[in-house]
Amino acid sequence: MNPELGVCYYPEHWPQEMWAEDATRMVEAGLHWVRIGEFGWSRMEPEPGRLTLDWLDRAIETLGAAGLKVVLGTPTATPPRWMLDRHPDMLAVNENGQPRKFGSRRHYCFSHPGYIDECVRIARIMGERYGRNPHVAAWQIDNEYGCHDTTVSYSEPARQAFRRWLAERYGSVEALNAAWGNVFWSMEYGDFDQIDLPNLTVTEPNPAHVLAFRRFSSDQVMAFNRAQVQVLRPLTDAPLLHNYMGRILDFDHFEVGADLDIATWDSYPIGFLSDRLEADAAHKAAFLQQGDPDMQAFHHDLYRAVGRGRWWVMEQQPGPVNWAPYNPAPLPGMVRLWSLEAVAHGAEVVSYFRWRQAPFAQEQMHAGLLTPNNHPAPGLDEAQQTAEDLAALGPVEPVQARVAILFDYPSDWAWATQPQGAGFNYFRLVFSAYRALRRAGLSIDVLPASGLSSADYDLILAPGLATLDDALADRLQTAAKLTVLGPRSGAITADFQIPAEGRPGLQALDCDVALVESLPPEITRPVQGGGAAQHWVERLTGNAPDLLTFEDGTPALKGSDQLWYLAGFPDEDLWDRIIKMAAQKVGLPLHPMPPGLRRRETATHDFLINYNATPVDWNGHSIAACGVAILKRNPPGQE
Amino acid sequence: MNPELGVCYYPEHWPQEMWAEDATRMVEAGLHWVRIGEFGWSRMEPEPGRLTLDWLDRAIETLGAAGLKVVLGTPTATPPRWMLDRHPDMLAVNENGQPRKFGSRRHYCFSHPGYIDECVRIARIMGERYGRNPHVAAWQIDNEYGCHDTTVSYSEPARQAFRRWLAERYGSVEALNAAWGNVFWSMEYGDFDQIDLPNLTVTEPNPAHVLAFRRFSSDQVMAFNRAQVQVLRPLTDAPLLHNYMGRILDFDHFEVGADLDIATWDSYPIGFLSDRLEADAAHKAAFLQQGDPDMQAFHHDLYRAVGRGRWWVMEQQPGPVNWAPYNPAPLPGMVRLWSLEAVAHGAEVVSYFRWRQAPFAQEQMHAGLLTPNNHPAPGLDEAQQTAEDLAALGPVEPVQARVAILFDYPSDWAWATQPQGAGFNYFRLVFSAYRALRRAGLSIDVLPASGLSSADYDLILAPGLATLDDALADRLQTAAKLTVLGPRSGAITADFQIPAEGRPGLQALDCDVALVESLPPEITRPVQGGGAAQHWVERLTGNAPDLLTFEDGTPALKGSDQLWYLAGFPDEDLWDRIIKMAAQKVGLPLHPMPPGLRRRETATHDFLINYNATPVDWNGHSIAACGVAILKRNPPGQE
Amino acid sequence: MNPELGVCYYPEHWPQEMWAEDATRMVEAGLHWVRIGEFGWSRMEPEPGRLTLDWLDRAIETLGAAGLKVVLGTPTATPPRWMLDRHPDMLAVNENGQPRKFGSRRHYCFSHPGYIDECVRIARIMGERYGRNPHVAAWQIDNEYGCHDTTVSYSEPARQAFRRWLAERYGSVEALNAAWGNVFWSMEYGDFDQIDLPNLTVTEPNPAHVLAFRRFSSDQVMAFNRAQVQVLRPLTDAPLLHNYMGRILDFDHFEVGADLDIATWDSYPIGFLSDRLEADAAHKAAFLQQGDPDMQAFHHDLYRAVGRGRWWVMEQQPGPVNWAPYNPAPLPGMVRLWSLEAVAHGAEVVSYFRWRQAPFAQEQMHAGLLTPNNHPAPGLDEAQQTAEDLAALGPVEPVQARVAILFDYPSDWAWATQPQGAGFNYFRLVFSAYRALRRAGLSIDVLPASGLSSADYDLILAPGLATLDDALADRLQTAAKLTVLGPRSGAITADFQIPAEGRPGLQALDCDVALVESLPPEITRPVQGGGAAQHWVERLTGNAPDLLTFEDGTPALKGSDQLWYLAGFPDEDLWDRIIKMAAQKVGLPLHPMPPGLRRRETATHDFLINYNATPVDWNGHSIAACGVAILKRNPPGQE
Repeated sequence: MNPELGVCYYPEHWPQEMWAEDATRMVEAGLHWVRIGEFGWSRMEPEPGRLTLDWLDRAIETLGAAGLKVVLGTPTATPPRWMLDRHPDMLAVNENGQPRKFGSRRHYCFSHPGYIDECVRIARIMGERYGRNPHVAAWQIDNEYGCHDTTVSYSEPARQAFRRWLAERYGSVEALNAAWGNVFWSMEYGDFDQIDLPNLTVTEPNPAHVLAFRRFSSDQVMAFNRAQVQVLRPLTDAPLLHNYMGRILDFDHFEVGADLDIATWDSYPIGFLSDRLEADAAHKAAFLQQGDPDMQAFHHDLYRAVGRGRWWVMEQQPGPVNWAPYNPAPLPGMVRLWSLEAVAHGAEVVSYFRWRQAPFAQEQMHAGLLTPNNHPAPGLDEAQQTAEDLAALGPVEPVQARVAILFDYPSDWAWATQPQGAGFNYFRLVFSAYRALRRAGLSIDVLPASGLSSADYDLILAPGLATLDDALADRLQTAAKLTVLGPRSGAITADFQIPAEGRPGLQALDCDVALVESLPPEITRPVQGGGAAQHWVERLTGNAPDLLTFEDGTPALKGSDQLWYLAGFPDEDLWDRIIKMAAQKVGLPLHPMPPGLRRRETATHDFLINYNATPVDWNGHSIAACGVAILKRNPPGQE
Repeated sequence: MNPELGVCYYPEHWPQEMWAEDATRMVEAGLHWVRIGEFGWSRMEPEPGRLTLDWLDRAIETLGAAGLKVVLGTPTATPPRWMLDRHPDMLAVNENGQPRKFGSRRHYCFSHPGYIDECVRIARIMGERYGRNPHVAAWQIDNEYGCHDTTVSYSEPARQAFRRWLAERYGSVEALNAAWGNVFWSMEYGDFDQIDLPNLTVTEPNPAHVLAFRRFSSDQVMAFNRAQVQVLRPLTDAPLLHNYMGRILDFDHFEVGADLDIATWDSYPIGFLSDRLEADAAHKAAFLQQGDPDMQAFHHDLYRAVGRGRWWVMEQQPGPVNWAPYNPAPLPGMVRLWSLEAVAHGAEVVSYFRWRQAPFAQEQMHAGLLTPNNHPAPGLDEAQQTAEDLAALGPVEPVQARVAILFDYPSDWAWATQPQGAGFNYFRLVFSAYRALRRAGLSIDVLPASGLSSADYDLILAPGLATLDDALADRLQTAAKLTVLGPRSGAITADFQIPAEGRPGLQALDCDVALVESLPPEITRPVQGGGAAQHWVERLTGNAPDLLTFEDGTPALKGSDQLWYLAGFPDEDLWDRIIKMAAQKVGLPLHPMPPGLRRRETATHDFLINYNATPVDWNGHSIAACGVAILKRNPPGQE
Repeated sequence: MNPELGVCYYPEHWPQEMWAEDATRMVEAGLHWVRIGEFGWSRMEPEPGRLTLDWLDRAIETLGAAGLKVVLGTPTATPPRWMLDRHPDMLAVNENGQPRKFGSRRHYCFSHPGYIDECVRIARIMGERYGRNPHVAAWQIDNEYGCHDTTVSYSEPARQAFRRWLAERYGSVEALNAAWGNVFWSMEYGDFDQIDLPNLTVTEPNPAHVLAFRRFSSDQVMAFNRAQVQVLRPLTDAPLLHNYMGRILDFDHFEVGADLDIATWDSYPIGFLSDRLEADAAHKAAFLQQGDPDMQAFHHDLYRAVGRGRWWVMEQQPGPVNWAPYNPAPLPGMVRLWSLEAVAHGAEVVSYFRWRQAPFAQEQMHAGLLTPNNHPAPGLDEAQQTAEDLAALGPVEPVQARVAILFDYPSDWAWATQPQGAGFNYFRLVFSAYRALRRAGLSIDVLPASGLSSADYDLILAPGLATLDDALADRLQTAAKLTVLGPRSGAITADFQIPAEGRPGLQALDCDVALVESLPPEITRPVQGGGAAQHWVERLTGNAPDLLTFEDGTPALKGSDQLWYLAGFPDEDLWDRIIKMAAQKVGLPLHPMPPGLRRRETATHDFLINYNATPVDWNGHSIAACGVAILKRNPPGQE
């Protein structure tokens, strides 16, 4: 596979006279792909039914003629203002019951049938017009589902749809009452129409109620996306894709991704470090202008799984952005580093956002490859350098990793619903495990819980996996030489009850959880020999051997030959110990990395990626500050 | 009095087949009481008027037959869902004007007449059916009034009721305008119907308006409770009680308690430490798994006063709970310690919450004496041990303390309405005084302002007592050898005005307050000789002798033979000095305690209670970590 | 000019029998002015149309007869309760869509035409009755516009008025779409009536939309004020004024001030330090009871500009206030210091708030010159001392400063709309420059952007001036020997777009901004030789000489002979360097001041003002703690 570069472009923002020159400059910069159209509805259809697509015809023609492949977006993330006159109740409603008004983007509720019809209509119009256009090489549906907390809506259409969804799932209201334990606090319903959305209750609502609503909300995203997929499929042979965001967990990306051909995501390393990552001040300062060394890799691996192997970066940060609390510039080299790192993880395309910085509106402070005044911005040089690097590199072929982490969206919803301790967060837990594997120099696959059947790994980690049915528990024992569960794995049923028979999978182990504690951040529970649990501790009972013990004598890790169970949320030292113990057990070689240096294997190359602002030497290789060393691997058998 | 143990139980959560065995196990564990019913309305009356009480008949019979005394709860804290169809406007409304929806508990407004009628109706049905049942030995009305901020409601029924309440209190709107000083900012009303609830004003509303609304809101709780008392009284001879909560101050418990026979409260020491106590990080870490050493004792003493001597712990924390920000497990011994400490303060019954952990709904992570899977949880052993301790101990008889603290709910409302400094909080001030007395090894009575007439104490403290009329000021001078007022005592009238003639009680002292200051937390005003005032300082004038002086030369404490006035919010050192000076003056022996060790006297025993995780030696006694030493007192005259 | 003192008085709060004695005591204290009436509407007109002004007649007569000059306020900041029955939709609406209810003050929306008519009506009634009254020597219109965030309202009348305002400004909706860049995210409108207020959008609204709404909101204040000006002008010859607040920037005071004769403001140094100033804990502790040493001076200089030379302090803090998070007392001497400092900056009148502390309602804890019980409070003595000082001082004549700072309200709106970094705040930036000039011992003029034409300064600073058209850029180069722009000067057009041709004014300099970064507070960018930029850094390009360089080699300051451009938000050290460099260049002598000591020149005197709690020696002068040294200047030519 020869990775390629691309860029996001808004012809509607610029005089038509500039388009041809823009296209030429893109090609000269080594770009192959250009995404357009995804916010252009008001120019495609300025009044209801009055279509003005000639500009888009010309834009596609101009770009295509220059040799670029077009990703065409359906514009459904930005319905024009007239849409609200037709569907006044189409807006999402926030948790406080306030409609989320027109004036920015994503101003729609996924449960509004009238708006879904409008989306199908515009997608059909576009599909009929461009589905066989030779320049249109891929289709993006909508834009960044879930961004700005838009998955969950407390609107009246959502309430109606939720009741229908519940009726379908539970069959009878008696079954629902039993499944949710509504006898508690006399919360029993006599009819599905008595069930409200779980906001603005006096104290917290039934977690089963909330989790059902979260499942429903995710399903509404899937259905919304599927409606456009179904209209486009017969009209085009080009792949369909969506651009996901970073650490947006409110809908199940695996389920949406199952309807699409390629997963893409929007990678803003510096924005994410500032905006959505738990880290101490020293870490945030050290990587202020580079981004966290594991955050991008995690999402690359996650979306590779969502895309069933096919994935892109659709929007790559090219300079300072506008939306994080603080927006410093990338250090020189970082735009290239991020691009090559994506390639190391298997990206087919890395596409920069955006071609030219807009001089107006919300994102006017978001850098592009060009300045608003059409001068080259620092990112352009690095993109061009990356293009040259890729040309020199040749094909990069993927390889299955030997270790895997399970990632499960409903587990995030469950633990967000009832964290039990303010410090417990599913993503944070999984990411702490991922980081530990990366510190050990390992390449990792991320897997959905449903994707285990055919896998063949040395080691699988499944921390915090909320619900573990017996079938999955069985598969976990065969999918790898060793599986590590816990903490909080298998702790609830799909309807948010404590399993009546104890935690699935642990019976085989002769191990159970007698007690659970959550801890404030400044308190930890040290483990004999080093490391500690933080945030969360379980008291394990049973005859399975103790592999690690807390200083108070209670077990920290219990296990059999194939299955271990971990009794707390490990700090860095404890994760490192556990990874080391597990690797020794399964015969997996580790490659301990210096801080900020990361390693990624492909079938053809080893990538050494230095997120530090200073050079690093490792195993005889010298990697420049913000640099990447790419080592050609020996063919299999010769290593 | 022979203290007994009990437990809270929800037969409706479990198959009927389990009830008899549960009852047997309760008795075997040494429990005498079992509380049931208080959340069971949807099972008592699944549809309006369709009563299904047979299960409750059987549950009472089963428990009673095993030898248990039943506390039967009226289920009015959890109206079923159908109630909202009958009374759509019965929900409370929060300060933002949003109805607080169905889906958890306490979803009603105290001012809704229709809902009060429904409560009277169900209470009458239960009273008629079980009022003479030999197993029903006490009645609990509703559950945890005021929990989840439910005392105050901004609903339309509350608005109507508030206007009627005002008309009754003030007679004419002219009188109200004068009492509130509404000439200020042209806030004068022409009619009671023009008066709104004091939320969502442009800047803060008139504090007299807010305080009146807080008094009204408290009165509505009293009236709500009284409606059920009045229907149950003729139907039963069993005592009526309610289970209050910790540090819920929004209604006047003394007034509600006056209609009941016994005060009970729900004691969650670890939850309270995490959730609702100002303390530094070191203190919170030291007592993370034990709870604050004075918080339970304070409430024991408070509710002993609310119950006019008769009080219980209705819900005793038996393990980790689910609702605090962090929920660690009690250290071994703590469940027993908390139980025995309650006995030391005069509890008739200590009842654990709950028998078996529920596997579903909001409290599924709240420990019980049994696990959800019916295994013994750690609390069960300690309950059983406590039962044995109590059996061995024999009767524990109360004795009046020699020192008392005044506690006054309206003072909390007043200072919450107009703190004047962000650090000023009434509970915090009173509790700081209580802690100082405890550090001195003293046993303490808590008194309502109205309960002073017949008292005979060495020392009374009345810090922050907002309103001090002349009669009370007089009583304070005769109720004890020495009374210590201030800071901020007698500072406002009942209608939130500065008293026209200066602070009542201080005239006799020849002392007045010329100026008041509030201070940020990092600034203190040191006192000559040690200690300092924090948060709040008053500048005293007048000829009363200066007993302590700030370093700037202004008086910190002024006093006569019987009355002292304190000019600031003391830090620990200053409280200790004042207690020592006062004790010397009145001839009261002190027993300075090591950190975390506390002492409580009864007529028959002295209890030494060690909240520390390590053993403590004191006065020749060695008290184990989390342990209690109970010393038999010599009969009076032989000490 | 002989500065005079005054006081704010509420005759309606006190029995008429006290008025004459109050007036006598005011005169004895050395006061010449008394402000009354501004909150008295409910007493002037207790029911719609029923006027009861006889008490006001008597009050004016009583005060005037004692020799006091009366400032008479229109009571439009506190409409009586009956006003809401006539105009139920007159309330402002907050960003969450909630009406801001009656019960305090300023409960009106500036866009409500019905309420404006009522204000004109009452102003006419008062003007006709008192416009020629010989005791009424000035008129105050309304009270503290914008206080309590009341400038911006999201009401329906505001929405209607905003649409009309937009139609007038832009002419066509196509022009508006183009000016705002609404093609972005398909935000284009088809009609002015489709445009909503920019609240409750899904993510941030178009900054052009917000800035337009902020301009509109400011214009509504101007129009509201003008309506009363227009009715009063023909009815009186007395000057019209308004009392502005500290650090309230939501409307353009220069524009409101242009319709008035005198600017006055309400100076609460200790409240402001606690409530609305960024400073570290050490600074806040050092000046806890004095206020920030530059905050009052800045506002004095600002309002001198707003009043085009004529300005007063209308409300001077006389003791502890009630409204800040913490409210300590002023140190002895501070009330006098604040008063004399105002005189040093050119105040015609310093008026204390209030005569006697009210014993009721919201401000009952706000000190006056008298206690509620009519005893002298500490402020009275200091006021009297100040009166004697002023009598001894004789005339104080103003002089133009040699340095000036531009202050521009729309720049604050722009950067609050799109700060780009959480630490970027316009006031904070300008105030940091002001402080640096004060540390250098300079006297400063504050200028509006429109007030440059006739100026003749050595040095002008214009940091953060958002919009810089070519004409202004030209004027800046001639108005001073040296002008320092940046950071973020000229960065956007009036419609919030990045200027198409680069930053105006910088072209001449051969300098442009290639990149912008915002930084978290703990990260700075050091400058070679000392000092650093914080919060905000720009990457400058172009051939203008580098005057200062960051440690990474990029320019920190570029400049020509007459114009410098600064590439970051300077910390204190960097500002000090820049001021020193600039002063050397233009030949301006500096007078470096010790911490807490400040200097202000007039034509007749030099004032040395010591905000420290300890004495300071400087240049042979010894200034007492909280003291003021006033040095007579030599007549011009003899210095």
